[in-house]
Amino acid sequence: MYKYEHGGDIYTEKTTADGRSFVDFSANINPLGLPLGVKAAIKASLKKCINYPDPFCRELAANVAEFLQVKADNLFFGNGAADVLFRLALALKPKRALLLAPTFADYEKALKSVDCSVKYYELQESESFMTGKDIVGKITARTDIVVICNPNNPTGQLTNRLLLERILQRCRMVGAKLLLDECFMDFVDASKAFSMRDLLERYPELIILKAFTKTFAMPGIRLGYCLCADAALHTKLHQCGQDWSVSVLAQEAGVAALKEQQYLHESFMLIQEERRYLITQLTNLGAKVYGSEANYIFFYLPKPADLVELLRKQGYLIRSCANYRNLGEGYYRVAVKTRVLNRGLIKAIKEAKKYALFTDFN
Amino acid sequence: MYKYEHGGDIYTEKTTADGRSFVDFSANINPLGLPLGVKAAIKASLKKCINYPDPFCRELAANVAEFLQVKADNLFFGNGAADVLFRLALALKPKRALLLAPTFADYEKALKSVDCSVKYYELQESESFMTGKDIVGKITARTDIVVICNPNNPTGQLTNRLLLERILQRCRMVGAKLLLDECFMDFVDASKAFSMRDLLERYPELIILKAFTKTFAMPGIRLGYCLCADAALHTKLHQCGQDWSVSVLAQEAGVAALKEQQYLHESFMLIQEERRYLITQLTNLGAKVYGSEANYIFFYLPKPADLVELLRKQGYLIRSCANYRNLGEGYYRVAVKTRVLNRGLIKAIKEAKKYALFTDFN
Repeated sequence: MYKYEHGGDIYTEKTTADGRSFVDFSANINPLGLPLGVKAAIKASLKKCINYPDPFCRELAANVAEFLQVKADNLFFGNGAADVLFRLALALKPKRALLLAPTFADYEKALKSVDCSVKYYELQESESFMTGKDIVGKITARTDIVVICNPNNPTGQLTNRLLLERILQRCRMVGAKLLLDECFMDFVDASKAFSMRDLLERYPELIILKAFTKTFAMPGIRLGYCLCADAALHTKLHQCGQDWSVSVLAQEAGVAALKEQQYLHESFMLIQEERRYLITQLTNLGAKVYGSEANYIFFYLPKPADLVELLRKQGYLIRSCANYRNLGEGYYRVAVKTRVLNRGLIKAIKEAKKYALFTDFN
Repeated sequence: MYKYEHGGDIYTEKTTADGRSFVDFSANINPLGLPLGVKAAIKASLKKCINYPDPFCRELAANVAEFLQVKADNLFFGNGAADVLFRLALALKPKRALLLAPTFADYEKALKSVDCSVKYYELQESESFMTGKDIVGKITARTDIVVICNPNNPTGQLTNRLLLERILQRCRMVGAKLLLDECFMDFVDASKAFSMRDLLERYPELIILKAFTKTFAMPGIRLGYCLCADAALHTKLHQCGQDWSVSVLAQEAGVAALKEQQYLHESFMLIQEERRYLITQLTNLGAKVYGSEANYIFFYLPKPADLVELLRKQGYLIRSCANYRNLGEGYYRVAVKTRVLNRGLIKAIKEAKKYALFTDFN
């Protein structure tokens, strides 16, 4: 029996015992919701759905290329970033990989699907789970691929650009690929945010993963992509999967999303402010907050041990990080939402702590 | 550089030289278009797209299970049948496969993505491209998977049930899987149509592929599935791909599609009548028509040799079958559409023949 291990499971149990819907802090989605322009684009594109989608996503590629100032030829789209990830694994068929621990579980899942053996660079609590320079030494002649999520999920911790360049150089030296997941970079403060995409042409071993999912609150539509200057890899990516992985609806949604400048600005400002609010409040509640540069907060709160359950009863879903490699009980991840919802979550955590204290006394 | 080799390419050249849109006979899509209920369901489901889709497609599975009278546990959904196909290849990792020739190109593409070597059972023109009993002898102890498209694409020829049962027994004997693609079975006349899904429980080696794409004219939405009673394979299928391959939009579209009884009845009647019309007209034009039990007609017409181009100039796209293994120039596939469009196609073929005759004289 297969077990689902991510956040965002609003289907297994649809409501609380007393019939209220859950507020889902377990998936890291832009709290402003689906942009109106995206909704309109999907409605307008329904008449085009009697045709197969464009296998090369040409209109979408042209738009993304202009938006990011990259070559359209460097873009490969998929049915969400997770789809691109599995296709990369199949196209590359790496034998040995180096992953951060903890990190997003699907890198390992995708690599295992092609029987790749995985080694881990264990992030240290004492270093606030930051990637250290010693990772470079872990990339050996036997390494085929290194995966770094930047900022990392679930920690929200950034790996700095200088270190990434050293990792890239090392990858080149040993003939490995560097897969850099920048899916959450859009939410990082302007003063700290950066993409490595200006290095694509110089490093054909660099592959950058991106998604529309988180930035435009469209996980239900499925649209992600990767950037890479290696033309042979693009051919292989096309060969290692169906031609029609990006629906007509998703292609049109993507084109419309890129026009949402005001939405992007507003969500960015909101996340910035609400991230500060949540970090302060959680710290006041005794939590230790790490990294958290993206649109989610990663923290440690040893008590109450059954925090997830106590919050669920109050109608809040949060992500326990106990099932991440190199983490354990007490680590959690919550999405950054609007003030009303964030305040509700903080209140619910207070209640949970009170309840736990009370039951501890009994 | 990757080359797209299917029908339905309406993106590379969007209009004829004089600016008219193409009528696309190269993709086999229900000519009645997207059912109204499906359009409405997609619009209504937009508000749910801020959440990740249900990884187990539970509501959709319950609906399909009831519709087909199968167990919901036997269903696995994907981003179109082609997505399920590639995932099956990755989950099974077969070493040696037996395919029909000619048949749908993506079986081979999916198998090659996991380095499977492929042998072919070459369908004979002298047998009207029907699968013969001698296929059973081609399934050896070294065979890991047999793929049969029923009715076959592009021929529209059915393999009979008795032979399929013998193939299944042979597969069991040698430890091979039988992947049976029934994507086009919904369009076959009631007197000839049959599914093998009643044998799922008896033969865990049987995997049946199905799609919403063709039946409900929704190739742009992406929804397909497979049926199989092998629980271990289902676990493997979940492990060998992302959890969110079926978008919220596609799941809701699928549920709504199954309620379209009137649409199904009307399209079935239309296809039946128009198939007869096209077969008669094409035969009168000197074409040799084979099989063609589904919603497409497969025929041989040696002259004019540049029929595809001559029709394209008149605004009609048809599928040349010259790039199918075991076929050559002169073989074509056209979809069955409404009378107005079918009449237009026949007229255009007449024009093409006249033009070719005229230029032959010069």
